[in-house]
Amino acid sequence: MEKRVYNFSPGPAMLPLPALEEAQRDLLALPGVGISILEISHRSKTFDDIIGQAEANLRRLLAIPDNYRVLFMQGGAQLQFAMVPMNYLRGSGKKADYVLTGSWGKKALQQAKTQGEVRVVWDGQATNYDRIPEQGQLDLDPDAAYVHITSNETIQGVQFPTEPDTGDVPLVCDSSSDFLCRPVPVERYGILYACAQKNAGPAGVTIVIIRDDLVARAPADLPSMLNYRVFAEGKSVLNTPPVFAVYIVKLVTDWLLREIGGLDKMLEINRQKVSRLYETIDRCEGFYEAHAAPGSRSLMNVAFRLASPDLDKPFLEQAEQRGLAALKGHRSVGGCRASIYNAMPVEGVETLCDFMLKFCEKHKA
Amino acid sequence: MEKRVYNFSPGPAMLPLPALEEAQRDLLALPGVGISILEISHRSKTFDDIIGQAEANLRRLLAIPDNYRVLFMQGGAQLQFAMVPMNYLRGSGKKADYVLTGSWGKKALQQAKTQGEVRVVWDGQATNYDRIPEQGQLDLDPDAAYVHITSNETIQGVQFPTEPDTGDVPLVCDSSSDFLCRPVPVERYGILYACAQKNAGPAGVTIVIIRDDLVARAPADLPSMLNYRVFAEGKSVLNTPPVFAVYIVKLVTDWLLREIGGLDKMLEINRQKVSRLYETIDRCEGFYEAHAAPGSRSLMNVAFRLASPDLDKPFLEQAEQRGLAALKGHRSVGGCRASIYNAMPVEGVETLCDFMLKFCEKHKA
Repeated sequence: MEKRVYNFSPGPAMLPLPALEEAQRDLLALPGVGISILEISHRSKTFDDIIGQAEANLRRLLAIPDNYRVLFMQGGAQLQFAMVPMNYLRGSGKKADYVLTGSWGKKALQQAKTQGEVRVVWDGQATNYDRIPEQGQLDLDPDAAYVHITSNETIQGVQFPTEPDTGDVPLVCDSSSDFLCRPVPVERYGILYACAQKNAGPAGVTIVIIRDDLVARAPADLPSMLNYRVFAEGKSVLNTPPVFAVYIVKLVTDWLLREIGGLDKMLEINRQKVSRLYETIDRCEGFYEAHAAPGSRSLMNVAFRLASPDLDKPFLEQAEQRGLAALKGHRSVGGCRASIYNAMPVEGVETLCDFMLKFCEKHKA
Repeated sequence: MEKRVYNFSPGPAMLPLPALEEAQRDLLALPGVGISILEISHRSKTFDDIIGQAEANLRRLLAIPDNYRVLFMQGGAQLQFAMVPMNYLRGSGKKADYVLTGSWGKKALQQAKTQGEVRVVWDGQATNYDRIPEQGQLDLDPDAAYVHITSNETIQGVQFPTEPDTGDVPLVCDSSSDFLCRPVPVERYGILYACAQKNAGPAGVTIVIIRDDLVARAPADLPSMLNYRVFAEGKSVLNTPPVFAVYIVKLVTDWLLREIGGLDKMLEINRQKVSRLYETIDRCEGFYEAHAAPGSRSLMNVAFRLASPDLDKPFLEQAEQRGLAALKGHRSVGGCRASIYNAMPVEGVETLCDFMLKFCEKHKA
């Protein structure tokens, strides 16, 4: 078998090996069915069970209350950036509040502007998006259409430690890059959405958890595929859903429940991994510089710069040779970034930390 | 290995076995990369090559002219039903012409109505959508925003033998269920779109072939994911595309080029398969009744009723026992339907025809 590397990509990202192995085993024909998951009808009993189990797994993992729908959509977080304001800003006579903690929040804001009036209630630009605001820093409008946050900024590696209090205004959250990394009080959200390709599955499916009263309020004049109400009424099979991607979400959430033991346990493992990385950065006394401020640091993405930008290239090349892939940082932050999603094993992080220590010893002035 | 059945599902549908086998072999890690196709970055050189080859294969198979873009989108034909009028009807001051040859054309029309004024230029309802109009029957507006057709109606099993002449008005075509079944003069279309899950790949990717002048005309005020111009400028990786589904499109089009030998050859095989089926229906002298009128019959979907609706259940059950799956017809037509897309082997059709003859002999009054 082809040797697998430790893939620190920000997404699409590593998936749990048992999920990949089961998908591989059954790829030509699902057991007892004789048809591949790539070929099976979305109206079949087989797929009905698969999507039902994927939803049941998510409901169990996140303790999703009964008054929330779970939708499997397409188009990634980017289509949600547009759909949220199409459904709840346009024609509402209100403004929408956006909290900007990094690159993705800014993209969400841009899309909302095509649909109505927006207010930026906090912007982390002054410190290059290295932190999350305190509650008191948010200039919230009690009559806003909604408040939008990005719970984890993949590029900057900052994450809300807990959700802000938005009172009666629905909190809408892009949780693409920290979905399922820890337990979340879903009842504090109006909409919680996430593309799958970090912690939940492959690219091609977006999970939207949305409260019933918002579902009911979606306007009638939108096309069906862009209307949360119509899509929810169609139970995510309004048209042919991305069958294979939903199947992988089922396998990944099976793994979280059965092999990991739920999100409390997953959080414990994720804390262990991220602590090892920041401890390694600290031990090198300035050779590596973390981008995110303490208290705002993401469990999922660790962005750091090396003592000199000239060291980036040898660092990345030598890491690659050791089977540590995709550590290049985003140009807006520079340096390197290790994305350590749920499926990144502790051994992967330990191998990276060992390499970072040796690289530092060798190159420290 | 699990035995594979002959799957006559209208879609998702059978895929070529060599494509499934290659995907299975490499599912844990792509050769020389060490990362699964389910995990690989859409910005990687590896994926850049895959999407580039998928496009090159499509351009070669369909002889797509240079002034057309090939886009890999999400949301299925249903999202195209909305995007076409969002981009080219809304705010145009014009009306759009729709030709209704079956269920999917009617759905496309419904979505367009949310965006502007539409005209039905022909409706096959009077004969329960069993035929395609002649050119002279189309009440076309020379100043229409566009003319929309459904080249193949999956449910009714009727297919345009050739595209209508729309003069200078852009012809927009939902080719979801006959894409790649035969050569097509792309230069006669403004937009040709198709979900993948019949002839091109798994559910989760939609292929849009669109002329440059239409790309350029997309309005500026639409969200990025719903704007053909922005999406084309982003070369289908505006956001994370459905990586795995695009990869399967590459493998399926590899098969069409290398193992089948192109679309002329594919058409020859498809004609052979569909002729066998209609000959079998004819040989049974009224025991089976074809839905589609001669001259309008689809190469891909053969809808037929049995002498009595009471025979449907035993027919479907006995077929299933012989490994002939998913032959149930749609309720709007009744009876049975055999979808015989590119990947259905000739042997599958022969096995079905043998079964149909035996069933007829046994149950004929």
